[in-house]
Amino acid sequence: MRAPVRHHFGWDDNTSGGKAIRPALVLLAAQAVGARARKALPAAVAVELVHNFSLVHDDVMDGDATRRHRPTVWKRFGTETAILAGDALLALSAQLLAERPRELQVLMTAVLDLVEGQSADLAFERREFVGAEECREMAAGKTGALLGCACALGALAGGGTAEQVRELRRFGEAAGLAFQFVDDLLGIWGQAEVTGKPVFSDLRNRKKSLPVVAALAAGTEASRELAALYGAKEALSDAQLAHAADLVDQAGGRAWAQAQADRLLSQALVHLEAAGLRQRAHAELAVLAQLITRRSF
Amino acid sequence: MRAPVRHHFGWDDNTSGGKAIRPALVLLAAQAVGARARKALPAAVAVELVHNFSLVHDDVMDGDATRRHRPTVWKRFGTETAILAGDALLALSAQLLAERPRELQVLMTAVLDLVEGQSADLAFERREFVGAEECREMAAGKTGALLGCACALGALAGGGTAEQVRELRRFGEAAGLAFQFVDDLLGIWGQAEVTGKPVFSDLRNRKKSLPVVAALAAGTEASRELAALYGAKEALSDAQLAHAADLVDQAGGRAWAQAQADRLLSQALVHLEAAGLRQRAHAELAVLAQLITRRSF
Repeated sequence: MRAPVRHHFGWDDNTSGGKAIRPALVLLAAQAVGARARKALPAAVAVELVHNFSLVHDDVMDGDATRRHRPTVWKRFGTETAILAGDALLALSAQLLAERPRELQVLMTAVLDLVEGQSADLAFERREFVGAEECREMAAGKTGALLGCACALGALAGGGTAEQVRELRRFGEAAGLAFQFVDDLLGIWGQAEVTGKPVFSDLRNRKKSLPVVAALAAGTEASRELAALYGAKEALSDAQLAHAADLVDQAGGRAWAQAQADRLLSQALVHLEAAGLRQRAHAELAVLAQLITRRSF
Repeated sequence: MRAPVRHHFGWDDNTSGGKAIRPALVLLAAQAVGARARKALPAAVAVELVHNFSLVHDDVMDGDATRRHRPTVWKRFGTETAILAGDALLALSAQLLAERPRELQVLMTAVLDLVEGQSADLAFERREFVGAEECREMAAGKTGALLGCACALGALAGGGTAEQVRELRRFGEAAGLAFQFVDDLLGIWGQAEVTGKPVFSDLRNRKKSLPVVAALAAGTEASRELAALYGAKEALSDAQLAHAADLVDQAGGRAWAQAQADRLLSQALVHLEAAGLRQRAHAELAVLAQLITRRSF
């Protein structure tokens, strides 16, 4: 499994291995409760392994051919190898936390939430109508759970109080969900050279992402036109994709998603405040949350 | 994930959920070192979860449509759901052993061996020549590792000595490899109504199973004819499949695999003897090893 995993992390040619947001959250959360970051290092690595396990498998399921400006694992090594590489990363993450029962429990619970979230995501693709609320719930499982888990793990490893663990988890969950709203916005209006994904990739795959679902449910003329495009049998042309993006905007999907992201960010910061943390790590966590919800697009 | 997992285990219609050999080994190994079976129950369940995680993913990779006389998970629920269901089973197995660090370590190491074994198996399918020895090694990872792990886990959970854990592991590894030889024989000469798989399924998929690899490497006239059939572009007819099975037999693949299975079984029983076990559980383990290497075909 060495070759596909090295490729996935960009170690073959020293290209990007991802933004490492989750391990950063783990280490900062540990510092925020007064511990040295080192104490949370195994948890930080384990969370990043779980995140990458899910990326490798998700790329197989979604049929995405590019990630981080490189071919995805399945594209380069085949579907079978990608499934196995993901399995290996998951097993490794569990092995890494074998001596830390509480942390392992928290991490594996997040994996199960992740799986349910991805499963709902795939089910939504096959359904005609998806409500904005159930879509938000799905995103909470798919992204919020692991970011919340990262913060909770850092606090746990750092010996934080039960209240600190809880508030940091809520901070991470809210920031994570905000992040998903932003990510879905990037899936439509993100620039390929920034995201490393093909332009309009989510629309091309008729993905029922958060802004799209909101636009479809808005009941406007643009909603109906968008539904017709999404329901078409044929692949959408580049012009049609650009038009679909405009329709999501006109139906209010873009503004709604941006507003949700902003509101979730505020909520995240309230939880951060409630956790009673060391000043410096508190400030860095707040900056990190703002950073991931304000990516350029 | 409830629906695909219930289907996989046969809980929907109370049909077979598999032979449960691995959990039986865990519980017997615990009794064999003088403990109550109950002490090894979490390990027994975790091993069975890992086994089924690997079956669900392997069926996706091998494209097998039937298992235990039912459609496989991917066939019934789609590839995506099968990948996710396997992921969930693996995460659950780790969660189950969260409070038992040593057992978790042993189990996750076996998962990594399993993954490497399956990866080698798939690589062999793409290669023209595969040696009998490397094929045997692959099978040791793919099947031996988890059965060895099951026995080691039972001994660990039961508080056995380091020597008992080691000898029971070797017993399980040898019995497991013997089991794989038998399974590969069943993949060619097994009856569909017994195995729950289509007749000649391994030959149909041009699988380089142990008897086939030995037959191809034997250098006989039958070997060359078999190689030509395996190298053909078109799907093989039922008559060709029956002929291919005869060629494996003529080139000595069948007799070799049976002899290997018998030898491994003897080795397994030597390790069992060396472990210094309670008489009754010792006898049951020996019977179980004989049972799994003498299945009807």
